[in-house]
Amino acid sequence: MYSLFLYNWQVRDEWFEVLKDLPIEELTAERGGGIGSIIKTLFHIVDVEYSWIRGIEGYDDPAPLFEDFLNIQSIQRLSDDYRKDLLQILGTLTDDRELRVVKVPWDEESYRYGEILRHVIAHEIHHMGQLSVWAKELDIDRVTANFIGRGLGRSI
Amino acid sequence: MYSLFLYNWQVRDEWFEVLKDLPIEELTAERGGGIGSIIKTLFHIVDVEYSWIRGIEGYDDPAPLFEDFLNIQSIQRLSDDYRKDLLQILGTLTDDRELRVVKVPWDEESYRYGEILRHVIAHEIHHMGQLSVWAKELDIDRVTANFIGRGLGRSI
Repeated sequence: MYSLFLYNWQVRDEWFEVLKDLPIEELTAERGGGIGSIIKTLFHIVDVEYSWIRGIEGYDDPAPLFEDFLNIQSIQRLSDDYRKDLLQILGTLTDDRELRVVKVPWDEESYRYGEILRHVIAHEIHHMGQLSVWAKELDIDRVTANFIGRGLGRSI
Repeated sequence: MYSLFLYNWQVRDEWFEVLKDLPIEELTAERGGGIGSIIKTLFHIVDVEYSWIRGIEGYDDPAPLFEDFLNIQSIQRLSDDYRKDLLQILGTLTDDRELRVVKVPWDEESYRYGEILRHVIAHEIHHMGQLSVWAKELDIDRVTANFIGRGLGRSI
């Protein structure tokens, strides 16, 4: 699973790069589907990933407020900060850990650790697909969703 | 990886169900981003998945023509047919197989078998994200992208 996180992080960083010069009015404009705006989507992806991974590791949810992250640069800093932790946690995955039964405070269900990893991975890819439609509407560059061509074969 | 294929197939079948009664004009309308229309996107997902998996298994590409699949029911039948093969191939994945170096006829690069599996998985989730934006625009039901809540924990 680790290589799919590396993939998501590469794609996310490339979107940050594409979107960093987009006017704030476009970043915050309400759009059809998804979380509602480009900037909310990016914040949501970063926030949800960290909450789940912290949760299944037994740590509290930092619950950052969207209102404090109203530009690409601040969301990217949050993403970079979180990633340092995530690299530590996810860089040492084992089959045994993926099978561990886990619970998080905001959900009554129990899950497999690896089930949550897949949930988080699919969540980001799904939202990035939405972003690609909005980017097309805005006539700006779109980041490729290809997994191949990113040097990730060695992380399989 | 197998559970992520099961996830994609569940999501895909739920989209078939949601979209089967949508008028053909809406299914074929050109939309911003992605492959261009809802029906082309569905055909593309089914076609690409099978081509890659057949390719890395050393089989030829059946290369179905989009023009022969101009409604949801025919694409779903194609998807069902292909799935019988894919279940056989992907139901017996091993770590060794994922590390195998593979080539396909349409690409000069060599890849890891597991790299292509991840490419195909991310490809479908990405396009389904696009579909969700278009469904919102059309004000029709959207299929959840959640991996949790689908009984897939036991397939981890």
